[in-house]
Amino acid sequence: MKDCLVHAKTFARIAPRLKGLEDKLNMIVMDDNGVFSKASTGETVTEPKPEIVFGTADAFWGPHVRTFMMAVVGGGRLDWFQSAAAGIENPALVMIGKAASKYTTNHTQSEAMSEWALWQALDYFRHGPKHRAQQAAGVWDRLDSREIRGSKWLIVGFGSIGSSTGRRVMALGGQVTGVKRSQGLVEGADRIVHPDAMMDELPNADVVLICVPHTPETEGMADADFFAAMKSDALFMNLGRGALVNEPDLMAALDAGQPGHAALDVASEEPLPQDNPLWTHPKITLTPHDSPQTHGTVIGADDTFIENLHRYFNGEPLKHLIDKSEFA
Amino acid sequence: MKDCLVHAKTFARIAPRLKGLEDKLNMIVMDDNGVFSKASTGETVTEPKPEIVFGTADAFWGPHVRTFMMAVVGGGRLDWFQSAAAGIENPALVMIGKAASKYTTNHTQSEAMSEWALWQALDYFRHGPKHRAQQAAGVWDRLDSREIRGSKWLIVGFGSIGSSTGRRVMALGGQVTGVKRSQGLVEGADRIVHPDAMMDELPNADVVLICVPHTPETEGMADADFFAAMKSDALFMNLGRGALVNEPDLMAALDAGQPGHAALDVASEEPLPQDNPLWTHPKITLTPHDSPQTHGTVIGADDTFIENLHRYFNGEPLKHLIDKSEFA
Repeated sequence: MKDCLVHAKTFARIAPRLKGLEDKLNMIVMDDNGVFSKASTGETVTEPKPEIVFGTADAFWGPHVRTFMMAVVGGGRLDWFQSAAAGIENPALVMIGKAASKYTTNHTQSEAMSEWALWQALDYFRHGPKHRAQQAAGVWDRLDSREIRGSKWLIVGFGSIGSSTGRRVMALGGQVTGVKRSQGLVEGADRIVHPDAMMDELPNADVVLICVPHTPETEGMADADFFAAMKSDALFMNLGRGALVNEPDLMAALDAGQPGHAALDVASEEPLPQDNPLWTHPKITLTPHDSPQTHGTVIGADDTFIENLHRYFNGEPLKHLIDKSEFA
Repeated sequence: MKDCLVHAKTFARIAPRLKGLEDKLNMIVMDDNGVFSKASTGETVTEPKPEIVFGTADAFWGPHVRTFMMAVVGGGRLDWFQSAAAGIENPALVMIGKAASKYTTNHTQSEAMSEWALWQALDYFRHGPKHRAQQAAGVWDRLDSREIRGSKWLIVGFGSIGSSTGRRVMALGGQVTGVKRSQGLVEGADRIVHPDAMMDELPNADVVLICVPHTPETEGMADADFFAAMKSDALFMNLGRGALVNEPDLMAALDAGQPGHAALDVASEEPLPQDNPLWTHPKITLTPHDSPQTHGTVIGADDTFIENLHRYFNGEPLKHLIDKSEFA
């Protein structure tokens, strides 16, 4: 029997899918009051020492994230942590990565995130802000819009988010160039270029989406030179991490008229303080890092955990296992 | 030589594509001051009597639409009118249809219109209004969104708009049921049902799009009963004609909480008067009948005209030729 910790809301969702594992798993749940209990009996657990943890938004965005973290890293017996997220550079996740023997990620968020990218591109191409201003004023003035069909996208970083987005853009008749280090054909791109060629590609793109991981090399990559290479009517989007963008450079570039607009789901500081000028810039659309937050993503992460649970007990390699050196 | 009338802006665009037809066409252009001239010499034409007319947005949405109309129907020699639009029920178009020996339509607007439908669906699923209110207030609160992937669409009227939209929704992982009289497989639908089954299908749909022609039978089809059959969190969209919707019923239904939102590109009166309550209803997104108005649509209509010009002079059947009885 392995002690397995999940949030109570997560358990309510996945319980029917744990059938056949009753003799292998001792499920412990934490509720929104930070109270731990055995799922089978309801008995309170005062010092949980989980061996397996499934960390979902229910726990990490709930009111007792600290209590949950303490149990995960403080129990001292953590063998495997399944994250519902793709990223691993958040300090809390690094702490868990150091504590766990095995750490697995989940990449099903990319489907939801790619729909965010379509939403933002359509709202820009269709003059969403101007249409809304006209409606508010009762003005019936036809506007000339652009289409995704025939538009040229440059997607910088071509992992699961890039590929999911690229597949959709191509299905809608757009053209996709992906930027990534390793070459070769990838689903969702008409062509792939090396990062060294990125600056030469920027002037051709109607939409530029960045979704590379945050590393010392990529930090601040979207800077004054980057924006100066873009078309004046192009859209810049960030679905990676806020630190990829030099935000003062972005605002200065938008003010100077190049690119035309920016859509950001991430910021250098999160939650973004209310007095940060990003909030009110007229050429910036900002969402609170919730592009992956859909029902589809929740179900997708559950799928990954259930599949990995079976692999775990069958002694098969876990999917999306992260190399321990990443947390060194 | 046939006298062929187009707007000056249209001519500027298509002139390079008229090569090889110089000995067959005497091009007459009307500029934005309502002045007619011969394209070849610049010589003013005081009483144009065109035999061929290509009617585009440049003319119909320009400042001298009346002058253009007078030349089209008043010349007395109109053999063939090529419209850039798909619809024929507008009174001005009916007048032209009566005057012309041959009247052809254009169906390339549907590609642009289908992107409008995706835009509106994404803005609703992603809580566009709430996200924008949060940004305006500087509030970083994550919202749970829905996805087009896995959503169920009911598309009432499955011509070119329905099919274009259905293809896109299916490519994004949604499910499409089309409603049309003639049965059989159609591109862009998982299944087709007869109009008699429409009311039974309404409760299953996350998105309902109507795009049937306006006829005595379809007038006011979206009424209180129609809306009462929809889900409370469903989106209603109209890309057909304003007269398909009973607008007071729609507003009452939205106020009562069913459906969740409406997105309309058409209204029963166009331009919609500033004091019409549709403008300010909090659950209605209204655009000024400009869903087809993209560069792609303009080029597509030019393509149709050029192809039909060659067919015209080669004595081949014209594409999208309307039966004269439609204008009776």
